[in-house]
Amino acid sequence: MDFKDILHLVRDDFAAVDACISSSLQSRVPLVSEVGTYIVQSGGKRLRPLVTLLAARACGYGEGRDHVTMAAIIEMLHTATLLHDDVVDESSLRRGRATVNSRWGNPTAVLVGDYLVARSFQLIAGLRNQAVFDIMSDGTCVIAEGEVLQLINQHDPDTTEARYLEVIHGKTAKMFEAAAECAAALSDPRWRTQMAAYARHLGAAFQIIDDVLDYTSSADVMGKNVGDDLAEGKPTLPLIQAMKVAAPAEADMVRESIRTGGLEHLQEIIALVRRCGALDYSHERARQESEAAIAALAPLPATPWRQALEELARLALRRDH
Amino acid sequence: MDFKDILHLVRDDFAAVDACISSSLQSRVPLVSEVGTYIVQSGGKRLRPLVTLLAARACGYGEGRDHVTMAAIIEMLHTATLLHDDVVDESSLRRGRATVNSRWGNPTAVLVGDYLVARSFQLIAGLRNQAVFDIMSDGTCVIAEGEVLQLINQHDPDTTEARYLEVIHGKTAKMFEAAAECAAALSDPRWRTQMAAYARHLGAAFQIIDDVLDYTSSADVMGKNVGDDLAEGKPTLPLIQAMKVAAPAEADMVRESIRTGGLEHLQEIIALVRRCGALDYSHERARQESEAAIAALAPLPATPWRQALEELARLALRRDH
Repeated sequence: MDFKDILHLVRDDFAAVDACISSSLQSRVPLVSEVGTYIVQSGGKRLRPLVTLLAARACGYGEGRDHVTMAAIIEMLHTATLLHDDVVDESSLRRGRATVNSRWGNPTAVLVGDYLVARSFQLIAGLRNQAVFDIMSDGTCVIAEGEVLQLINQHDPDTTEARYLEVIHGKTAKMFEAAAECAAALSDPRWRTQMAAYARHLGAAFQIIDDVLDYTSSADVMGKNVGDDLAEGKPTLPLIQAMKVAAPAEADMVRESIRTGGLEHLQEIIALVRRCGALDYSHERARQESEAAIAALAPLPATPWRQALEELARLALRRDH
Repeated sequence: MDFKDILHLVRDDFAAVDACISSSLQSRVPLVSEVGTYIVQSGGKRLRPLVTLLAARACGYGEGRDHVTMAAIIEMLHTATLLHDDVVDESSLRRGRATVNSRWGNPTAVLVGDYLVARSFQLIAGLRNQAVFDIMSDGTCVIAEGEVLQLINQHDPDTTEARYLEVIHGKTAKMFEAAAECAAALSDPRWRTQMAAYARHLGAAFQIIDDVLDYTSSADVMGKNVGDDLAEGKPTLPLIQAMKVAAPAEADMVRESIRTGGLEHLQEIIALVRRCGALDYSHERARQESEAAIAALAPLPATPWRQALEELARLALRRDH
């Protein structure tokens, strides 16, 4: 089962998600629709709505379209986060295209992001499901705190692995968790805990690999610049581990680069994280998260959708972008 | 009945609102708590939570604390809007103090604003009232659209009075409306329509006077700079009316100042809006809104709280900051 096979399993649902997002971004204010369409067309992996759909089906989702709405909500909230992230990080490139802030300016990116959040909660209100409302409002709080925590850790070379894991829990894992837990709540609430655990671990694996790719991929493949994290002074796992095991002089070079966000030593640091085993270490941490994700699904009925979720956790380790 | 008498009517409730906001801003991320405390201490008029509390009491709110939570939610959401507004407008002064963006930077202002929104929806979820959820999620959508609309109108001297009214409906009136309508929903849903109408008109009156004050008050009294709106190229009612009735050369000067956001002609424009009757015209529009607000309350039982709401609509016209 490869990624295409997984997508195929929920192909019709996915088309409905895209339609739901598009119609939700229509607004009486043309700039909102214009920016909305731009973001939707920029694609992206749409991994979170995929998890929502697969999780709903794996939990035996019946008739109705709530799972489709739920997947659209998750993608819209995720997109809102990206809009604000790019303002915060002053990023100019995302998914191989100009970011909204670089094309329309910070005010537009901030306010359209706010609109997406409001619109998402409007869709949540329409679902008339208190559990979903609780999960999503708790989740967005954790995510917002995670974003602020990441801001604090920025340029701080003393960030520990524990603090790093807390950040990725907030910035990535929590949205995956909410996506899958809501899918279970809408389908069969008995599976909420398992689904939440699965997606939390999947999200962590996904983010760790993302942080590895920042030092190993290329702009062509990733659609963003190699070394972006370093340029932003982000102490991600490859660097945290490198500072732990590298020779003092090398560790100091990493520390200094995190502090200044300078890219003068990018090539040396890329070589270092590879040579000192920091990338292997990070990969191994991601593999543990992936395994924990798969283990969480064990109690669920054996279905193609559960199999797809398991496969997704394996693919998270093998991706190149 | 003056403003102090009005406040006195809901004094205990108000203390509980402040406590609710303070405890809601506690976070495991210290920067969130720090910025939160700074905003709360900066005070402000707290007009929206006041309307919430008075509206609840005027609708016969019984036992419980939901009205207090509701008032806290309204103030927190309003504060989130201010945080993002100040980023968008690059404002440095608000309520006589440095803005969060000028003191901590744009990233902090954007992300703490996001946190306040998430926390507000978490409190809404806790109220377990679907009507409140619907009103608040619809309301935040309109507000977000209004913010984008204001952005589009900025530096556009062709903004009509109708478009101006649409903007102030979104940026101000809608939050007042949501505050009062939710109060009714939590107290006696029969009064939802009246309360919504009251607060929508009150909010419009309030904002029109705000836009007048930008040309008539002083920094000492307002806690922000005179001419801020002009500096931001905002075509508010005093300017829209002045362009309509002033001599062509004077109208051109206003047009040009809106386009460039330049303050070179500030003193001339202040003299002009006064001389040509644009301020009187704006005042008259605000007075109409105030009267419509009072009229909407007519069917409600005669209570001190209804009287206070009426008085608030009158005071909105007489304030100097």
